[in-house]
Amino acid sequence: MSTRPPIRRRPLDGITVVGLEQAISAPLCTRHLADLGARVIKVENPGFGDSTRHYDTVVGGMSAHFVWLNHGKESVTLDLKAEADLGVLNRILQTADVIVSNLAPGALGRLGLGTDELAQRFPRLIIVDISGYGTGGPLDHKRAYDLLIQSEGGSCAITGTPGHPAKPGIPAADIGTALYAYSSILAALYDREKTGRGAIIPIAMLDTVAEMMGFALNGYLHGGTEPEPVGMGSPMIAPYGAYPTADGQTAVLGTTNDREWSRLATMIGRSELADDPRYAHNDDRVRERAALDAVVGEWCAQRSLADIQKLADEAGIGNSRLNTVADLAQHPQLAERGRWRDIGTPSGPVPALKHPALARDWEVRSGWVPALGEHTEAVRAEFG
Amino acid sequence: MSTRPPIRRRPLDGITVVGLEQAISAPLCTRHLADLGARVIKVENPGFGDSTRHYDTVVGGMSAHFVWLNHGKESVTLDLKAEADLGVLNRILQTADVIVSNLAPGALGRLGLGTDELAQRFPRLIIVDISGYGTGGPLDHKRAYDLLIQSEGGSCAITGTPGHPAKPGIPAADIGTALYAYSSILAALYDREKTGRGAIIPIAMLDTVAEMMGFALNGYLHGGTEPEPVGMGSPMIAPYGAYPTADGQTAVLGTTNDREWSRLATMIGRSELADDPRYAHNDDRVRERAALDAVVGEWCAQRSLADIQKLADEAGIGNSRLNTVADLAQHPQLAERGRWRDIGTPSGPVPALKHPALARDWEVRSGWVPALGEHTEAVRAEFG
Repeated sequence: MSTRPPIRRRPLDGITVVGLEQAISAPLCTRHLADLGARVIKVENPGFGDSTRHYDTVVGGMSAHFVWLNHGKESVTLDLKAEADLGVLNRILQTADVIVSNLAPGALGRLGLGTDELAQRFPRLIIVDISGYGTGGPLDHKRAYDLLIQSEGGSCAITGTPGHPAKPGIPAADIGTALYAYSSILAALYDREKTGRGAIIPIAMLDTVAEMMGFALNGYLHGGTEPEPVGMGSPMIAPYGAYPTADGQTAVLGTTNDREWSRLATMIGRSELADDPRYAHNDDRVRERAALDAVVGEWCAQRSLADIQKLADEAGIGNSRLNTVADLAQHPQLAERGRWRDIGTPSGPVPALKHPALARDWEVRSGWVPALGEHTEAVRAEFG
Repeated sequence: MSTRPPIRRRPLDGITVVGLEQAISAPLCTRHLADLGARVIKVENPGFGDSTRHYDTVVGGMSAHFVWLNHGKESVTLDLKAEADLGVLNRILQTADVIVSNLAPGALGRLGLGTDELAQRFPRLIIVDISGYGTGGPLDHKRAYDLLIQSEGGSCAITGTPGHPAKPGIPAADIGTALYAYSSILAALYDREKTGRGAIIPIAMLDTVAEMMGFALNGYLHGGTEPEPVGMGSPMIAPYGAYPTADGQTAVLGTTNDREWSRLATMIGRSELADDPRYAHNDDRVRERAALDAVVGEWCAQRSLADIQKLADEAGIGNSRLNTVADLAQHPQLAERGRWRDIGTPSGPVPALKHPALARDWEVRSGWVPALGEHTEAVRAEFG
């Protein structure tokens, strides 16, 4: 049994990451590496930089997206088509542990930075090459943004209502890709400790969306059914949805198995439904979704949200509230648990959420959102 | 410069993971650990097991969800309220590297397996405790499913159309939580190589959704605006959406910066719009979303999808197709790039996608979907 006290630490202290990055996927990946202590050198093109810098100006002149994705990094502007600047990048790579790129297809190769060349020159380097569609196949030349990949990958078709597909508001293709890139880098760092070798990790956004669609793919491949989007419900389970309450709010209730269904039926005073063979199992209930939604909806319409949530908690039925973004920003569950910290920006400190999966002994690292090229001179001097 | 040939390897060979798991978040996390070579012992309650086993029976008697999330694992049924079975679990934990749990709040503590107790007894163990709302705050006792957390976290409010919020079809709260758990375990394995210490990693699903909402949170906190869901568009950029084509399909087109907007205007024969100050920058175009959607929609309605995609590719404008799940299952970009492999099930081999972020030198590990308790006897004998 250990009696050693915890030591506060950042697991990626000493790791250097180069981001040839733009938009969401690569920047979120490298931001999380920075959260864990890595030094992240974000390489941007002079003058314009990462396109998310220009989405809006709401955060003291910086954009909502850029601030979310880029705190804790150094911004270095390099014109990679100019030999001198490409030389700076190559010298940075001599000491770097990781390079993450999501530039347009072929861009790295044209700079002499193709993944095979990099791996030859830097055998301990972990090289992550994010693209929309990977290498090979009819689409590998195509540009990729979140909406495009979520559309191509079927995610929009199972969101919304029948005949009215919708893009999930969360950029799931970008974020999924970011998290697969982030995790594969961590796996590669662990692997490198054992083998001394780096890694080439190609990640296609379409593949990450396809993985996230795994349940729907299996349903189609084996059941032959195309899931219809069902608004606030889930195509795979029922009853599960959002129901207006007597006090003008929206309760969200769900059941995921037969035992919960039985408890729900009892809670709404309709215990005879629990024994009705039409609703016995989840696939039965999915077929009878409309009828069950009507029954649950009628019960909710006669009660306040607070009453519904209290009764549902007592019955062991999962429940929540349909919140706006404003509700989330003010959510007591985030505030009371100390989930916010301040990060620095050129216009002063702003709140940001802590990394969602820090070990208790790891330090919370709160960095700075860099202006375009803010660290260019210092990095040029260091690697000149 | 290295001349060593690549060695095929699985980075998590030799790592043992215990999953006290159900539904999606913990099972997807441990499935990816299995993909990388870890031995995953999935502990299920006798008789019923993981609730996703019972969602449907489409895959030769197993459910679409269960097959997606559980290949490559051993299933061991233990009654953890019985002392003998709890003893088996404790003996497994003596040699395990990782434990991942997403049981109901407090369940682990009642078994004498609270995170602090585990960390005391097994100082090298990496302990991941997934909950809906974390510890503390008014909601920490509450059950959590994907829809509940996406509702509570504002994700549904920015999906759908104004007045008609929708749950993203992809279970983003579950999958995001899975990927944060997965990545934090990999970070902790790397950290353990350096420090010899395990880690306690609490992960709340609400925190992961809040992180994924970072752009919207910043927009609200600093701009004071509540983003309205815009169907197939993005609340933050425009024009960006889905447009019916002359041949009855749906083209998806998007622009993310002013230069692309200029090229798009030229492509649709409306280059005068590129110089129109009403549409100069992204935030201007977001305000004029409806007018711009009408212009782009009219152009698409007169052309076939193939023509639109060819012209857009030539103009350097991102584009894709609105696909169904069937389209995804048959997608040539997955088939031609060899993204499918077979996994084993009690009813025979079935196709499954490869892990989306494997390094080139890492082996693809294709496992088996276990029947409930299939490995109980063997594991009891091994740890008896």
